[in-house]
Amino acid sequence: MSDRKISIAVIKRLPRYYRYLGELLSNDVVRISSKELSERMGVTASQIRQDLNNFGGFGQQGYGYNVEYLYNEIGKILGLDKKNKVIIIGAGNVGQALANYSDFQKRGFDIIGIFDVNPAIIGTSVRGIEIRSMSVLEQFMKDNKVDIAALTIPKEKAPQVAADLVKWGIRAVWNFAPTDLHLPPTVAQENVHLAESLMRLSCKIKTMDEKMNKEKEKDKK
Amino acid sequence: MSDRKISIAVIKRLPRYYRYLGELLSNDVVRISSKELSERMGVTASQIRQDLNNFGGFGQQGYGYNVEYLYNEIGKILGLDKKNKVIIIGAGNVGQALANYSDFQKRGFDIIGIFDVNPAIIGTSVRGIEIRSMSVLEQFMKDNKVDIAALTIPKEKAPQVAADLVKWGIRAVWNFAPTDLHLPPTVAQENVHLAESLMRLSCKIKTMDEKMNKEKEKDKK
Repeated sequence: MSDRKISIAVIKRLPRYYRYLGELLSNDVVRISSKELSERMGVTASQIRQDLNNFGGFGQQGYGYNVEYLYNEIGKILGLDKKNKVIIIGAGNVGQALANYSDFQKRGFDIIGIFDVNPAIIGTSVRGIEIRSMSVLEQFMKDNKVDIAALTIPKEKAPQVAADLVKWGIRAVWNFAPTDLHLPPTVAQENVHLAESLMRLSCKIKTMDEKMNKEKEKDKK
Repeated sequence: MSDRKISIAVIKRLPRYYRYLGELLSNDVVRISSKELSERMGVTASQIRQDLNNFGGFGQQGYGYNVEYLYNEIGKILGLDKKNKVIIIGAGNVGQALANYSDFQKRGFDIIGIFDVNPAIIGTSVRGIEIRSMSVLEQFMKDNKVDIAALTIPKEKAPQVAADLVKWGIRAVWNFAPTDLHLPPTVAQENVHLAESLMRLSCKIKTMDEKMNKEKEKDKK
């Protein structure tokens, strides 16, 4: 299965499948049909069959998917069967929120370090993890095999810090700074651009307003 | 221009254009060609022309785009020319991070209320905004024309709170809870699912590992 190439579009959808299957599992559901799953998830059953058959027939016709098996297999594809070591750069509100999010730990993401430049908080801890000075980051990277760095720092500083992390062997950057990082293709990247998400929301409101106004116009005629 | 239908795919890309144009503007760039913009943004020039021509020819052949004009026009399409009133439900780390993010204010998103159930923090303030009890939320919704509610509460509570907000007239929900909300089509919705973003990152690491291993295998042969 690991020999198959999985398209970016399917990768994007997998975490959502994983979340739904996890919920089913914790509700002791053993089997589910693509039809049932499609109703819950609000996507078509054929989309589900197409996505899941990508990985080589978890489902059996007329019998449905084995929830636990599918959950575990998707977990493997997502790389959740191995531990990922995570550091957080920037111990502001977002950084602390990430550190406090115990769900990450459950899914195999171990936060092993938090770094900041603010002397007032260096030496304090979040959920038992000490906040260290940025000046010891290079040594920390040498001493620990860090997989993922979450960047929760201002956009002005993010490109340089990312470049340093790449130099020191980081494998993936989870970027919360509102800027695009130009990383080599060997380093994975995911961006969480909150301002852009908020703007999309505002755009949707505007679009709905316009639609509503048009319908009112029609009613008048 | 507001008569044109804008596809979901273009809406998704607009905030990124807006961000880049804002940066150009603050660097006093007056004009930019689709070629230059494409190099900065890492998308093809033809994609840029196609996207921006959607809204009716901001660009002139051989002359480029007027940065300020384009910035303002995209801002209007995104609904940023009017103020949006925002409330935050849940004053945990993520809620406080949103409240502290002054960039939102600059773009016309006014945070007018923060709500929580924790008596220990009700009555305290974040950036001058009082944290109120959830018990006064209904009255607050009656007294204020709230556009957007950011939900930064546990997933178990999110569906009920969202349903209440819809009943009380909310126009858009910015959902940070790791669950899908089933809202009526008249209410806009954006989800920020951090765990899913982190899993996509882990999946990308795994995919890169497999690619690297295969290349090593090849080298051996």
